[in-house]
Amino acid sequence: CADRVSHFVQDVWSVFSPLAVKTGAVNLGQGFPNFPPPQFIKDAAAKSIGPDLNNQYAHPKGHLPLRKEIAATFSPLYGRKLDVEKNILVTAGANEAIFATLSAYLNPGDECIMMEPFFDQYEPNITLNGGKPVYVPLRLHHKKGAKVSDNDSAADWTLDIDELKAHITDRSKVIIINTPHNPIGKVFSAEELRAIGQVAIDHNLLIIADEVYERLVYGDKEHVRIATLSQELWERTVTIGSAGKTFAVTGWRLGWALGPESIIQNILNAHTRIVFCANAPLQFAVADALHEANKRNYYATQVSEYAARREKLLACFKDLGLRVTVPDGSYFILVDTSRIAIPADEWKEICAVPMPSTNRDWRVCYWLTTKIGVAAIPPSSFYSPENAHLAENLARFCFCKTEETLDQAVAALQKLK
Amino acid sequence: CADRVSHFVQDVWSVFSPLAVKTGAVNLGQGFPNFPPPQFIKDAAAKSIGPDLNNQYAHPKGHLPLRKEIAATFSPLYGRKLDVEKNILVTAGANEAIFATLSAYLNPGDECIMMEPFFDQYEPNITLNGGKPVYVPLRLHHKKGAKVSDNDSAADWTLDIDELKAHITDRSKVIIINTPHNPIGKVFSAEELRAIGQVAIDHNLLIIADEVYERLVYGDKEHVRIATLSQELWERTVTIGSAGKTFAVTGWRLGWALGPESIIQNILNAHTRIVFCANAPLQFAVADALHEANKRNYYATQVSEYAARREKLLACFKDLGLRVTVPDGSYFILVDTSRIAIPADEWKEICAVPMPSTNRDWRVCYWLTTKIGVAAIPPSSFYSPENAHLAENLARFCFCKTEETLDQAVAALQKLK
Ligand SMILES: CSCCC(=O)C(=O)O
Ligand SMILES: CSCCC(=O)C(=O)O
Repeated sequence: CADRVSHFVQDVWSVFSPLAVKTGAVNLGQGFPNFPPPQFIKDAAAKSIGPDLNNQYAHPKGHLPLRKEIAATFSPLYGRKLDVEKNILVTAGANEAIFATLSAYLNPGDECIMMEPFFDQYEPNITLNGGKPVYVPLRLHHKKGAKVSDNDSAADWTLDIDELKAHITDRSKVIIINTPHNPIGKVFSAEELRAIGQVAIDHNLLIIADEVYERLVYGDKEHVRIATLSQELWERTVTIGSAGKTFAVTGWRLGWALGPESIIQNILNAHTRIVFCANAPLQFAVADALHEANKRNYYATQVSEYAARREKLLACFKDLGLRVTVPDGSYFILVDTSRIAIPADEWKEICAVPMPSTNRDWRVCYWLTTKIGVAAIPPSSFYSPENAHLAENLARFCFCKTEETLDQAVAALQKLK
Repeated sequence: CADRVSHFVQDVWSVFSPLAVKTGAVNLGQGFPNFPPPQFIKDAAAKSIGPDLNNQYAHPKGHLPLRKEIAATFSPLYGRKLDVEKNILVTAGANEAIFATLSAYLNPGDECIMMEPFFDQYEPNITLNGGKPVYVPLRLHHKKGAKVSDNDSAADWTLDIDELKAHITDRSKVIIINTPHNPIGKVFSAEELRAIGQVAIDHNLLIIADEVYERLVYGDKEHVRIATLSQELWERTVTIGSAGKTFAVTGWRLGWALGPESIIQNILNAHTRIVFCANAPLQFAVADALHEANKRNYYATQVSEYAARREKLLACFKDLGLRVTVPDGSYFILVDTSRIAIPADEWKEICAVPMPSTNRDWRVCYWLTTKIGVAAIPPSSFYSPENAHLAENLARFCFCKTEETLDQAVAALQKLK
């Protein structure tokens, strides 16, 4: 095989999702809802399957009815009229949008900067395209006077702009900004985004704003779209969104890229050759879903439901005496596992199990899944190999699950007491 | 943008499909059925949308029920038991299967051989992955004593094995064999495939067998799967199939790759990072469709319907006195346009229209679409730039259309008399 895949190890998702199924563990691992999408989304899907011509190729840019609904939905949020021919591209999931963008922008050896920890797909998305991943840390700054038992807030994880600048080279080409952030749940403030954006402007970087969790922001935090902060930033930013995350249908594999014409055109050139077009029938369903969503106050309803799920899981970890990072957005909670006592014989048993990584967090998550009965994801998957140790005492739990599933998880986690 | 996309011109599909819609021409251009898929496929789709968990991520390899049906369908055709964990990968269309394979096998500068003409996506699929396309011609050998007015048969287009060998270098890595062939409609014989396969064995090439039209073979020709010709060939071949072509649902974007474990694993590594997984709900629909298809004698029924469509269009070109290549497979007919008389003023007008190519066949197809009212595809899209002139007198017509559409096309084409 080619060098670009020869070092690939099995992805964390293909390990823990089957393991959860096999062991019957409550699955708080991979981020997908186990509740149905709302009825109006299901209706939209059922309707989209009917008409005969919905079954044939879509335009590579996406079906026009969907592009129109995306324009109608996002134009007010961007404070500009998005043009269906120029500013919008429908992709085979947000993942393919990011992959196609990197295909369209990275020459071999070009560098793509991301914040660490990072959504695990970024790294292979870059290296498959011959690029070089560059990691700038998000560092946890405990609040002054915080007790060891206090939780961290996602906002405590910050980027040092001088550290970012120190990572710029003459090969720097792209920066990925993920807000709300997976796995931390950090929602970047306008001030933070402006500072990062200025670095991108100063060094002529393309910005990939991965905003797939844009509709899942809690409390008084607000999602800020970096592309709206200035004309200069609009012109160098492609913003990625996801029907899967927005409508609780991660399997539909439909996402979108929004940006200025020249960037969208370049991504379209790559996208047309990578997949040709995204699946057609569900594009009509997403068009309907977007059309209905505002009318039905769907986004507000959804976020309040997720907020309740978040509270339930946070309360559980508090009760267990485990420190967490309280997320402001997304549907993940990072938990500090250092105080979990694992029986020595069980640990020994787990250490003998072959897995793609021997990092402690993999073993702890494997133990949680098989012995406690709750699957979680080892966050070293979100770190470069050099920094995997930073995650050794972390586990990521996902709360996009039914009340019942979360109650089962809480019950199972009582064994940690 | 990156060098790999900077030379990209607009793809032929995004030009002619919208042009056909805009002008109201009968669309015999891009290859997609304009008839509904059979009711049992539509039923399968409707059913797949229902169950809630069908809406979430599939396994990157594909949903197990679909892999099982693929194994059940193809194991008898391969004369070996295909293993659902090892030999089968579900992809986001056959296109993504080919792209992911090239990602997994081409190092920068590695060469991928294909026969020319070739399905247009191959070229950018290779160059996006840093590879170098190498073209070996299929040459038309008129039958001895054939009259100028005789049709050619797809079998008259042949590959000279010595010419293939002459294109092998120490960078040769992959060969793509497309049978049935788009745009020629050639169905390679076992003898031809054995000879090509031997070259692949001698020079250690990976074989990509693009067999998406495997179910559309006419008359007494038979589709031969190169991977079944010997154990040696099985071990170095990945065979690509398409639910879109098989079930008349090109917009579902579901395909598959079949092959030995090591090859499938390498492709999986790339595929998991390019799109993560194919759309989930329609995977269940394709599983059902495969399950039903044999029972219902679907493949035989379908091919007889396509054969009748082919006859209709062939009769039309015969009546018009236009030479064609009679296809043995696929749903395309190549037509020799040299004897079509185009009024000088209309030709002048067409020559002033900006289009991605100034090759004569683009202009003829543009003229056919706008002045005759029947859209066709210019086959120079299927040639390297150096050889585009070989297609100057060709147009490709597609016959996967309703009787009614074909009748309309025949009626409109009478203007050529
Ligand atoms: C590509 S599967 C990952 C799903 C997800 O976004 C997550 O769990 O982080
Ligand atoms: C990628 S769209 C092309 C459809 C097709 O296979 C063809 O018309 O050749």
